[in-house]
Amino acid sequence: MAENKKLTLDKVYQASYVLKDVARWTDLIYSPHFSGDNQVYFKTENLQVTGSFKLRGAYFKISQLTDEQKAAGIIACSAGNHAQGVALGATHAGVKAIVCMPDGAPISKVEATKALGAEVQLVKGTYDDAYNYAVKLQEETGATLIHPFNDPEVMAGQGTIGLEILDQLDKVDAIVVPVGGGGLIAGLAYAVKQLKPSVKVYGVQAKEAASMVESYRQDKLINLERVSTFADGIAVKNPGDLTFSIINKYVDGMYEVTEDEIAAAILKLIEKQKLITEGAGAVSAAAVMFNKIPLKGKNVVCLLSGGNIDVNILSRVITRGLITSGRLTTFVIMLEDKPGQLVEVSQTIAEHGGNVVSVHYEGSDANMAISSCFLRLNVETKDFEQIDQISRALQDKGFQLVE
Amino acid sequence: MAENKKLTLDKVYQASYVLKDVARWTDLIYSPHFSGDNQVYFKTENLQVTGSFKLRGAYFKISQLTDEQKAAGIIACSAGNHAQGVALGATHAGVKAIVCMPDGAPISKVEATKALGAEVQLVKGTYDDAYNYAVKLQEETGATLIHPFNDPEVMAGQGTIGLEILDQLDKVDAIVVPVGGGGLIAGLAYAVKQLKPSVKVYGVQAKEAASMVESYRQDKLINLERVSTFADGIAVKNPGDLTFSIINKYVDGMYEVTEDEIAAAILKLIEKQKLITEGAGAVSAAAVMFNKIPLKGKNVVCLLSGGNIDVNILSRVITRGLITSGRLTTFVIMLEDKPGQLVEVSQTIAEHGGNVVSVHYEGSDANMAISSCFLRLNVETKDFEQIDQISRALQDKGFQLVE
Repeated sequence: MAENKKLTLDKVYQASYVLKDVARWTDLIYSPHFSGDNQVYFKTENLQVTGSFKLRGAYFKISQLTDEQKAAGIIACSAGNHAQGVALGATHAGVKAIVCMPDGAPISKVEATKALGAEVQLVKGTYDDAYNYAVKLQEETGATLIHPFNDPEVMAGQGTIGLEILDQLDKVDAIVVPVGGGGLIAGLAYAVKQLKPSVKVYGVQAKEAASMVESYRQDKLINLERVSTFADGIAVKNPGDLTFSIINKYVDGMYEVTEDEIAAAILKLIEKQKLITEGAGAVSAAAVMFNKIPLKGKNVVCLLSGGNIDVNILSRVITRGLITSGRLTTFVIMLEDKPGQLVEVSQTIAEHGGNVVSVHYEGSDANMAISSCFLRLNVETKDFEQIDQISRALQDKGFQLVE
Repeated sequence: MAENKKLTLDKVYQASYVLKDVARWTDLIYSPHFSGDNQVYFKTENLQVTGSFKLRGAYFKISQLTDEQKAAGIIACSAGNHAQGVALGATHAGVKAIVCMPDGAPISKVEATKALGAEVQLVKGTYDDAYNYAVKLQEETGATLIHPFNDPEVMAGQGTIGLEILDQLDKVDAIVVPVGGGGLIAGLAYAVKQLKPSVKVYGVQAKEAASMVESYRQDKLINLERVSTFADGIAVKNPGDLTFSIINKYVDGMYEVTEDEIAAAILKLIEKQKLITEGAGAVSAAAVMFNKIPLKGKNVVCLLSGGNIDVNILSRVITRGLITSGRLTTFVIMLEDKPGQLVEVSQTIAEHGGNVVSVHYEGSDANMAISSCFLRLNVETKDFEQIDQISRALQDKGFQLVE
């Protein structure tokens, strides 16, 4: 590697200085709720400007361009957080930015990127199509392409989070970090290990997009054909070679979490910490919550890397969480078609403290007596015990529950 | 008022010192998204330990009891944040606490209060019933009743937030504060005005529970017969006389927000700030968002007082927000009972980018031809334009939309 292609502690400190006026020094919050046989703290990069850490790397990279490069503008490709980081970074630096996004990107992210001052070009197809278009555009225009992770200056920017953590928690023993392409954990692990090698750094990926976990295990760069996770911010098929070589050297372990574990962590962060995280931002919390990592007795900093979750997804995560914790349920009742049945069902549910939120009547199907129908009720409950009580009461009154 | 019954700046500073090891110095976060013709910052007491500011007043009050009083224990009445504040405060101080709660209180709040170390006594009926029971219990046992707001030491504890804000934002011009019984704003306004009288302090209540707004307007204590708001943390029928006299003297204006405005503020805080607030905690943000207060050109600190929102309520707030912003909609289609109809409807919606999340088939009613039925589809959309496109496409294909 050429000297300017290398990540150095110097660069991280330089990034820290450059970012002073642009990025927030995000809070470190102790969490009794996530602490078990250890002490857990959250580094809240979901509360970073633009809602994720990505701003740090993007802005530092832009700040290091020559005047000539700045005049030629920059290009980035992203469907998410990198887009907003680059857009705000470019605006701060007075540089023209074009961000290529796949045309299926959520309108909220497209609008947010535009609002931060970038020109958005929507490209038909997937992220890969948008990336290929961005490379073509870069070749045509001579603008600089800002890679989301595989770049020493981008890594140095993300590494500033490591400096902040060492400052915020003297006694830190371990740091748990979400991993996609690897820019964040590479920068952070590098910086932390230079200063305090005893601190363990662990990475976490979504099980359905574990390209870096596999690379780490097999000790070579592994590309995946297909990734499928609602943690879209870390759904990376092709991890970086530069990031991988640093991760391989400095990271102490790589772990996986399932989609359900991520959803449970997001809900717990909402209920107990009052914090919104996106899927990618919560994999670290999920790994701690489900004891994936040996952290007994340790002072653990769990990095929440971003909070840009689509509200539709958020709504589903919450609904799923309510169902899996017995606070929302569905009763499907086969009814004979005679008067007064709905009244009796409603009364029974109300008497046991259930709160009916919706009712659907469904006509008979081929397997049922012609005079029967289904009644489907969504009911808010307190817990599984209450659901059982209501079920039994309905059955005691002769109603037939279908599910 | 006797000397020890008076709020003094001394008491606020003493509270600030006492709270060092118990309460978090919560972050102040600048918000470009809520800033318009002004600069808006959030003081994030929703990220306070126990999820609300209430801990401050409760703990300081408990710390000031004599050894004899401490030995006799404390009693509190609350269905919400005060309960958790008292419970944690008592545990820190090594004092036995009984918290009386109405038996309809959400199980999550009952459990949280117990987990913080208090004994919970559930009282049949409303908050008033629980309060009367607490008073009786206090008379019987000689324990000290910790009032949620109408107490100079409780106010002094809440006032520490004012000191922190002055420290965190030198240039602050105005502070916007949620108001229930008035303990928070009384303590804060008093402290801030002693130190920097030029800072304006404004209070906000829910329109359907505006007892302090009315008292302020009519210049006398007004009790309400009935309050009705999902901002349960500030649903107070009887404001305090001690808090009122301070508010009357030091507060620069009192404003109201509607339920829909509160819900919109909660959703925007989720989407843009990645912060969970409860209804009571977000009335300040709602007042700023809907321009209720003259704040042009000002540096405004908007206090988010708490984040303990029931997840069922949160889920409804989000759903409502999705509907009112065109991101979730329901199509009800009257169908003739012939094959292939559902396929065609589904295809039409998919072609225009809608995402069907649920389908209900409903039998014919008295006003319909016997061969017809209703199809009700819940569909995720991008915006109102897309909803219109789908509606038109369905109508172009001859489908009859009912709503």
